[in-house]
Amino acid sequence: MSEPNPSAPLTYAAAGVDIDAQDQALAGVKRLARSTFTSGVLSEIGSFGGLFSLEPDNPQGQVLVASADGVGTKLKVAQMASIHDTVGEDLVNHCVNDILVCGARPLFFLDYFASGKLDPGVMVRVVEGLARGCRANACALLGGETAEMPGFYAPGEYDVAGFIVGACRRDRLLRREAVTAGDALVALPSTGLHTNGYSLARRVLFDVLGLEVDSLVPELGTTVAEALLAVHRSYLAAVGPLLERGRVKAAAHITGGGIPDNLPRALPGTLGAEIYLDSWDEPPLFSVLRRAGSVPENDMRRTFNLGVGMILIVADAHLGDVLETLVPHGPGWVLGRVTGEPGVRFLRR
Amino acid sequence: MSEPNPSAPLTYAAAGVDIDAQDQALAGVKRLARSTFTSGVLSEIGSFGGLFSLEPDNPQGQVLVASADGVGTKLKVAQMASIHDTVGEDLVNHCVNDILVCGARPLFFLDYFASGKLDPGVMVRVVEGLARGCRANACALLGGETAEMPGFYAPGEYDVAGFIVGACRRDRLLRREAVTAGDALVALPSTGLHTNGYSLARRVLFDVLGLEVDSLVPELGTTVAEALLAVHRSYLAAVGPLLERGRVKAAAHITGGGIPDNLPRALPGTLGAEIYLDSWDEPPLFSVLRRAGSVPENDMRRTFNLGVGMILIVADAHLGDVLETLVPHGPGWVLGRVTGEPGVRFLRR
Repeated sequence: MSEPNPSAPLTYAAAGVDIDAQDQALAGVKRLARSTFTSGVLSEIGSFGGLFSLEPDNPQGQVLVASADGVGTKLKVAQMASIHDTVGEDLVNHCVNDILVCGARPLFFLDYFASGKLDPGVMVRVVEGLARGCRANACALLGGETAEMPGFYAPGEYDVAGFIVGACRRDRLLRREAVTAGDALVALPSTGLHTNGYSLARRVLFDVLGLEVDSLVPELGTTVAEALLAVHRSYLAAVGPLLERGRVKAAAHITGGGIPDNLPRALPGTLGAEIYLDSWDEPPLFSVLRRAGSVPENDMRRTFNLGVGMILIVADAHLGDVLETLVPHGPGWVLGRVTGEPGVRFLRR
Repeated sequence: MSEPNPSAPLTYAAAGVDIDAQDQALAGVKRLARSTFTSGVLSEIGSFGGLFSLEPDNPQGQVLVASADGVGTKLKVAQMASIHDTVGEDLVNHCVNDILVCGARPLFFLDYFASGKLDPGVMVRVVEGLARGCRANACALLGGETAEMPGFYAPGEYDVAGFIVGACRRDRLLRREAVTAGDALVALPSTGLHTNGYSLARRVLFDVLGLEVDSLVPELGTTVAEALLAVHRSYLAAVGPLLERGRVKAAAHITGGGIPDNLPRALPGTLGAEIYLDSWDEPPLFSVLRRAGSVPENDMRRTFNLGVGMILIVADAHLGDVLETLVPHGPGWVLGRVTGEPGVRFLRR
């Protein structure tokens, strides 16, 4: 990898991640996946969770909702800081949120842990985090695979992936077809970067600013490790009761691709959204990254959650109830509105 | 990694894989996993698949059977040979077999694909193999995660993990409690190394013998790549009809740890097994590896499947039917017997 030029603006692509190449591959993958679909499949690849009906003929039957995820290069920070439990929790919570935005509650989780030479102590620390996340979400840690692959991972490095299965009654699935122009977008606050944008954040903090994991960042009042390893929040406790009361039409988990790429996944293709930039104060970590990396605004928005971890799409009639119910979990706010034409516009009112 | 001494016997531990360290970590993991178990969980970590009941009060209710797996360093061979589709098929079939030995048929599969810099062409080739494997097993490829982790994987390298969910009626689950002393062990032939023992096999073939992936191995009549990339066989077509007729008491998928570590997972703790070494001709690939690596017999048995990919445990009354049914899929044979004391003994009659 070439050294970054500290005066040049940093983009996610320059940091080594090419979202467009990922989209290109995804098109081929979708076609291949479709060739395998059996009668139980209700979804296409690209929604937050895969939907599989156990009783295709029963409109109130159980639907399994499944998702696979990784932690990305947040792992590198964990490995630099020798803090291995929080990434386990990140992984579970990321998976829980991906099926929650389909309307599902978790049933069980499995993990894949791979390293060059197994360090049992490190691996058990990761699983401690997985188990803590699973307990907090009433999700059983049902199994996993530990792979020892000599020569594949550098000493001290490992990768970890998670797989979750949840369930939802078919007539209670969140469906973007229910969304109409004028619906409110309710934002739920994130707790940090969650699990996205770490390749760019590491370039800015470690390469451009020359910080170490234990360096104090004055603007944040925390160390780099504390800021970067903040645990990806699970929204199950906050959103679960709203789902039970039928208060949410659709929802988006804001992960890789940010609001511009994830919110449209919860909207019909004919609709779009406007986002009120003056509706929230961006957490200072994002401002530090933007400024120090001279990151163009478009890259900021497609790389980071900018303080918005999840967006609920809510009819006006339910907006008061939704906002009130969210308060004890950390208040949500009206981030914007669904609009009658495709595309996500950011604006100041 | 130190260079191997060609005259010293090669063991799996010397090749960099420490099964005992894995067992140590597994004990901690089991304890943590147990702390997350909810009322739906029917199994403990360590069985081939995790069991989750959707209707805990219904003895004939559906049980979900889930498993996570990787391909191990077979990936390295695929990457050396630039053949990327077969590992996808390996992964699906490995997962299918892991839930098959619980009695389950597959419902759906998800993958996790991670690389440093995404090569869309390579990734799509891997997914072609996944899709081929899924179609052959009537299993939907329901989703997956593509992770681009700059600096984490060497150029041209990637890791891939798979996650499968199948289902079985609770009263049809295979259970080791059904096994009694005297039951027959029916072996199903493997198609090669399947997905285990590649770290040792690579040391022997590439380091000790100095072969390349496209070198012809005279004893095998194939190239190294052809021998090592033979696809892990799915036993669903052969064993599915036997499960439907209730002909199998329990079964073991012979993966890492070989017959000595995997067969006991299908036996009650009080029982063991004797394996008739003269009941089959070991495929020549294993003989090449044993001889060229001076691999001790115990390491051969704990590292490789030695030609036995799956073992079915069958009552004598059903043995004739089982052997006859298997013939069109590649004949099985009586590999040994269940014995009244714990442990796996290898013997010649």
